[in-house]
Parts: sequence; structure tokens; C-alpha cells
Amino acid sequence: MSETPAIAVTPEPPYYAVIFTSTRTEGDRGYGSMADEMVRMAAAQPGFLGVESARDGVGITVSYWRDLESIALWKRVADHLAAQRQGRETWYAQYEVRIAKVERAYGFQREEV
Amino acid sequence: MSETPAIAVTPEPPYYAVIFTSTRTEGDRGYGSMADEMVRMAAAQPGFLGVESARDGVGITVSYWRDLESIALWKRVADHLAAQRQGRETWYAQYEVRIAKVERAYGFQREEV
Repeated sequence: MSETPAIAVTPEPPYYAVIFTSTRTEGDRGYGSMADEMVRMAAAQPGFLGVESARDGVGITVSYWRDLESIALWKRVADHLAAQRQGRETWYAQYEVRIAKVERAYGFQREEV
Repeated sequence: MSETPAIAVTPEPPYYAVIFTSTRTEGDRGYGSMADEMVRMAAAQPGFLGVESARDGVGITVSYWRDLESIALWKRVADHLAAQRQGRETWYAQYEVRIAKVERAYGFQREEV
């Protein structure tokens, strides 16, 4: 997603993270376009703070949210429910979802020379 | 790391996650071997529960720990301190570390046909 930074810009903790780790089945079968669409939809949800995503073998997507209510609402959005179902039917060999409260955060940014 | 599963096998929550998101500078410059060594060392630390890692553009490594004390101890291990310093001097363009308490987790495993 060119419009979003690779490393999410998030507010001071506390806030929530949804850590979604997955392994895929073979072939794309509409996965890539669905994944892009889900990121676009999540970003428009109330309470969305940012997302980071990488896949090489295992895929890790971490989305950040203001509170548990925002996460619960996003989980129940109709198009997202359909994507979750097709994920289990088609796209994922295995996944794990972990919901975690971010208590502390710090970072580093290289000085440009 | 062939000896560890791509998706970490973690106990029932609560436990802690350290979400480390980074972008790299150009070239390897010893990064790959250091990263492998840090995973080996972390896995031998008290309170270590598992790790998941992927890089494509952005790198995301999530390590799981029993409690905050385990995380604090690992942060202060001498070889790890040296890797953190060289990370800032050489390997990373930017990073963010988020320490989060995993409150809930659930997963999916495809049935083999």
C-alpha cells in the first residue's frame, strides 16, 4: 500500500494490536486483491490506527486499534466476515490471531546524512 | 529457522509479545547471521515462548514471552545489547518496538484431505 508508511505511525500507548500470522495454501486464487481491499476497508474503520504487513513463507499482519470495541466492530463487518470465511475455505493453511494491549513503544529513525 | 514452526505455538494467554518492525539499510553487512544468532539466543532465554518473522520491504519479528521480566532480561543480555547498538549504527533505517500483553488468541488449522 503506497499510501501508508511501512512502519505504522501510532499514538502513545495504550492501544491495541491484532497480530495475524498465517501460512498460505498454493496459488493466489483472489487472495492478493482481497488482502489489499481488506486493508483499505480496515483503514476506513473507526478506531483504526495503522497496519504493518510482510510475507516470506509465513505472513505477519499487525493492525493497530484504539480499543477492543473497534476490533470487535471490524471483525463483524460483512465483507470482512466473507473474507474470513473464504480464508478458512481457500486461502490459509493455518493462522493464529492474537489480540494484545500495547503498553509501551519506542523507536529509532536514522538521521539522513 | 528450520527447527522452529513458522507460526509460534504459544500457551493460553495472558503472555507478552514484542512486536519489532523495521526497515533496513542497503546490503547485508553481517545482518543475516546476526539475526539468526539472536533468534537462537532468545530461544534459550528464560521465559521465551516463540518467535515469528517475515521480511518483504518491511520486516516484522514478533517474539513471545512469559512476562515483562523475561523481556527486560533479554534486552540486557550483552550480545543482544551489542546487536541493538550495531542495529542503530549500521543495519536499520528505522524501527519501532512495541511491547504488548496478549489477552486473547485463537487459530485455524486446515484439515489435511
